[in-house]
Amino acid sequence: MYDRLTKYLPIFDWGRDYNRETLSNDLIAAVIVTIMLIPQSLAYALLAGLPPEAGIYASIVPIILYAMFGTSRALAVGPVAVVSLMTAAAIGQIAETGTMGYAIAALTLAFLSGAILLIMGVFRLGFLANFLSHPVIAGFITASGILIAASQLKHILGISSHGHSLVDVVWTLLQNLGDTNVITLVIGVSATAFLFWVRKGLKPRLRALGLGPKLAEVLTKAGPVAAVLVTTLAAWAFGLDAWGVDVVGQVPQSLPPLTVPSFEPDLIAQLFVPALLISIIGFVESISVAQTLAAKKRQRIDPDQELIGLGAANIGAAFTGGYPVTGGFARSVVNYDAGAETPAAGAYTAVGLAIAAVALTPLVFYLPKATLAATIVVAVLSLVDFSILKKTWNYSRADFFAVAATILLTLTFGVETGVSAGVILSIGLHLYKTSRPHVAEVGLVPGTQHFRNVLRHKVETDDTLLTLRVDESLYFVNARFLEDLIQDRTAKGSPIRNVVLMCSAVNEIDFSALESLEAINLRLTELEIGLHLSEVKGPVMDRLRNSHFLQHLNGRVFQAQYDAWQALVPAAKAV
Amino acid sequence: MYDRLTKYLPIFDWGRDYNRETLSNDLIAAVIVTIMLIPQSLAYALLAGLPPEAGIYASIVPIILYAMFGTSRALAVGPVAVVSLMTAAAIGQIAETGTMGYAIAALTLAFLSGAILLIMGVFRLGFLANFLSHPVIAGFITASGILIAASQLKHILGISSHGHSLVDVVWTLLQNLGDTNVITLVIGVSATAFLFWVRKGLKPRLRALGLGPKLAEVLTKAGPVAAVLVTTLAAWAFGLDAWGVDVVGQVPQSLPPLTVPSFEPDLIAQLFVPALLISIIGFVESISVAQTLAAKKRQRIDPDQELIGLGAANIGAAFTGGYPVTGGFARSVVNYDAGAETPAAGAYTAVGLAIAAVALTPLVFYLPKATLAATIVVAVLSLVDFSILKKTWNYSRADFFAVAATILLTLTFGVETGVSAGVILSIGLHLYKTSRPHVAEVGLVPGTQHFRNVLRHKVETDDTLLTLRVDESLYFVNARFLEDLIQDRTAKGSPIRNVVLMCSAVNEIDFSALESLEAINLRLTELEIGLHLSEVKGPVMDRLRNSHFLQHLNGRVFQAQYDAWQALVPAAKAV
Repeated sequence: MYDRLTKYLPIFDWGRDYNRETLSNDLIAAVIVTIMLIPQSLAYALLAGLPPEAGIYASIVPIILYAMFGTSRALAVGPVAVVSLMTAAAIGQIAETGTMGYAIAALTLAFLSGAILLIMGVFRLGFLANFLSHPVIAGFITASGILIAASQLKHILGISSHGHSLVDVVWTLLQNLGDTNVITLVIGVSATAFLFWVRKGLKPRLRALGLGPKLAEVLTKAGPVAAVLVTTLAAWAFGLDAWGVDVVGQVPQSLPPLTVPSFEPDLIAQLFVPALLISIIGFVESISVAQTLAAKKRQRIDPDQELIGLGAANIGAAFTGGYPVTGGFARSVVNYDAGAETPAAGAYTAVGLAIAAVALTPLVFYLPKATLAATIVVAVLSLVDFSILKKTWNYSRADFFAVAATILLTLTFGVETGVSAGVILSIGLHLYKTSRPHVAEVGLVPGTQHFRNVLRHKVETDDTLLTLRVDESLYFVNARFLEDLIQDRTAKGSPIRNVVLMCSAVNEIDFSALESLEAINLRLTELEIGLHLSEVKGPVMDRLRNSHFLQHLNGRVFQAQYDAWQALVPAAKAV
Repeated sequence: MYDRLTKYLPIFDWGRDYNRETLSNDLIAAVIVTIMLIPQSLAYALLAGLPPEAGIYASIVPIILYAMFGTSRALAVGPVAVVSLMTAAAIGQIAETGTMGYAIAALTLAFLSGAILLIMGVFRLGFLANFLSHPVIAGFITASGILIAASQLKHILGISSHGHSLVDVVWTLLQNLGDTNVITLVIGVSATAFLFWVRKGLKPRLRALGLGPKLAEVLTKAGPVAAVLVTTLAAWAFGLDAWGVDVVGQVPQSLPPLTVPSFEPDLIAQLFVPALLISIIGFVESISVAQTLAAKKRQRIDPDQELIGLGAANIGAAFTGGYPVTGGFARSVVNYDAGAETPAAGAYTAVGLAIAAVALTPLVFYLPKATLAATIVVAVLSLVDFSILKKTWNYSRADFFAVAATILLTLTFGVETGVSAGVILSIGLHLYKTSRPHVAEVGLVPGTQHFRNVLRHKVETDDTLLTLRVDESLYFVNARFLEDLIQDRTAKGSPIRNVVLMCSAVNEIDFSALESLEAINLRLTELEIGLHLSEVKGPVMDRLRNSHFLQHLNGRVFQAQYDAWQALVPAAKAV
């Protein structure tokens, strides 16, 4: 009973051992994460096309719900770059940025994606995330990083651009280039340069000053806060908003409001596929962060329970003025490095952000959007990594092709097309490969009982015996292939009297393949050639016994290929 | 050069050996097939919702084009039951039966499906047809047979019904049951009963009278012609059309007209998916008929060239007043049994049908539609075969599930949903199975060098050595699975010092799986456990050599599992 409770509500697990020391560790982590999250949340809301407070709201209730239902101890849930971009892409087709419809569509998207995650969790469908191959994810993240960075250039230049593909964004940007606001440009470029320096130059310097690696890491992550403080002060002191510098402006001072997503069937139909893609991408990002951090402390993550935790977080976002959220890489790593020991750290962060939402929002009035854009650009460019192209090119052309297509399609047609095409291509290429399996003719390695490919090894063979090792499960996609192959190999005039199918690599024989085997058996029987099987695996043999195939088979089933060799080759000598 | 010519225009292959004997054999077959095709073509046009002459036209030019480009010597191309039903389902959503728009949509559908087949042929994509598993095809044909029979009941009762699902058809039929025309019912029921008797009772009787099996077969196939003659004469003699019996009526006396399909983008967008499904289903039906007949004479069929032949036939149909066609089972078997030796028999059939179209159409004025419906019902009920449910239930639940879903969805939502769901389910179930592969811990079969599952066989093992045989290719869908499994098996306190992955059943390691193997290697290295591979296949090893994995691997790669056993188990003795 208690076990089941802790399984579905992990809070009862770690809550038992909570003590003063864990409390103080969690509190310190929460303060650090809160400070880092304020500018980040504002920036991602901007990226998603939502008012800045939506980013703060999306970080409060979702964190608490994840702390109750999730299994990772260090994961920090909230808005993240890729999901924010996907949100903008999904809603941009339905409503205008800044309208009420846009905000409601964002709530609905969060609700749908929460519902999808919850359902996947309850039905234990976490394995569906495996259908995204590692290279496709890497390609997608890289392309998204480029798209996000390009989309932020408008804020750094102080002009406007739009579109969901790289070409659209860059083209509209170039058209408006003449309107560039020089002061905005100075702020944007210097903030970007500063943040790059913090990332690349500050950390080694801090280490050289004798700081520990974790502290150096945390201070480095505070770079955006410094940039925000300095540029906000400058904008306030010089009244830069009057000079055309876009600032965040009025942000309501309020706890997250109670909001209700729309349940209009048309809207739900339009948002369903984007919500599904956001759920899967969000889940994959979150689970890989959670597993990386858990492995460091030898903790376990339950993927199906993670789905429930993320589902609850998104539904929470839908009812409290947020938008789709997931476990973020940067915020989780800071949380972990700052010493968070339990999900309670997340709850304290939520309290910190709630205080910020009520008390601190007037302070960001003069925060230039160019600074927020700079923090996004620097954060996402670290996601861009083209080395996956080289790695896959060297290792496997099919993987390379899937990555290259994912990157190209994401840049050309946007995130939804890109990620869908990546999944379909991965599966399609896999099926294509299995439809033309590798089949080796094998012979006996002299002095052993081991059989290998006649083309690669020096082996003994016999003219009357054809032994084929099919390197694939036999199923409908390749059922006809084997039929054709054996027909070709046993053409008129061949001395072959026995064919052995060595089934060591055949992990399944489905009904289509069974029918093909029966056809092969019939044809070989007419030709007075024996058909035998060897090294059939237990589960495959169990299934064959349920059919009539073994009664019809004109030859035998040998446990080991060596047994077949001894029985069918008259001159064979025992080793 | 000549080889290439005969490859793409097989007519130059068989045309060379054409002589007086082949000519007379082909002519006899053509006469028989022509007589059989006249009522069948009218009936299928009715099923497709088109005017009766469309069925005749669809049998003329397409036959000739297939004879030029196709590779089967006995295949007869023209309207078939399932494709006619799919045509009605596709166009029924776009236009009203009997309108000009409906006929033009039929031409466009034929053109699109011809273009798809041609493109598949040129790019040698014939393997795509393999993605339909045998059980899914069997289920789809069975469900289509039921749908077709149900759709013809209206003609037998002389009332109206419509819809694309079984429920719709039966429901609208029941609503109009009160309007049943008794004379139509008598004609329809007696024609149906007669045709069933011909099929079940006549053939054995003819054989008992001493007729050869082929002649008996051909005479049996002439049953529909007899029914057509008798009921047409009766309708003419008694003026039954005045009594409310629906007859075929005026059919234009003309050669196939020159028609042009529509190239309107909207229409093409609407018809593209139906055309794709029709192409694939038509191709699968045609290729299986062609291969069955070719195997009997040890001839070869080239699937990719077949695509070109069928594509040309469909484009021909689009420009000559037809609708989508394919190689039909019944007509091809009659052609074969009647002695056709070359595709020229098809061309002669086309001439016969052209003569019929010009000269004989007035004779079918009084042909009752109920008779045509009876020929369809009897023909398609022979397609209905639920035994596939039992066979797959016994053999493999996944296959059973795919068939059952295909049948149910086809009956409930129509042909397009049914066949799409069948394909998606087959692929989905296959991926699901491979995502949780069978993994066996293996040990040495005493006295041999052979290793089998410790749970199924009496084998020798060693506490410090864990040998796992993964019965599946390692790829993105199951990459994480192995990571989790090995982590569980090498938990704290286990005596295991070495892990061997026996890769005899691993046919591929893709990039995602490679990353997982690297993660496993890293984790085991930390635990001071050796990771080794054995029996890695040539193609897999080639690829691993292109990566850095083999340098990082903390253990060795053994050619045979027995080598690993000897090297890693101190107490191992040579056999």
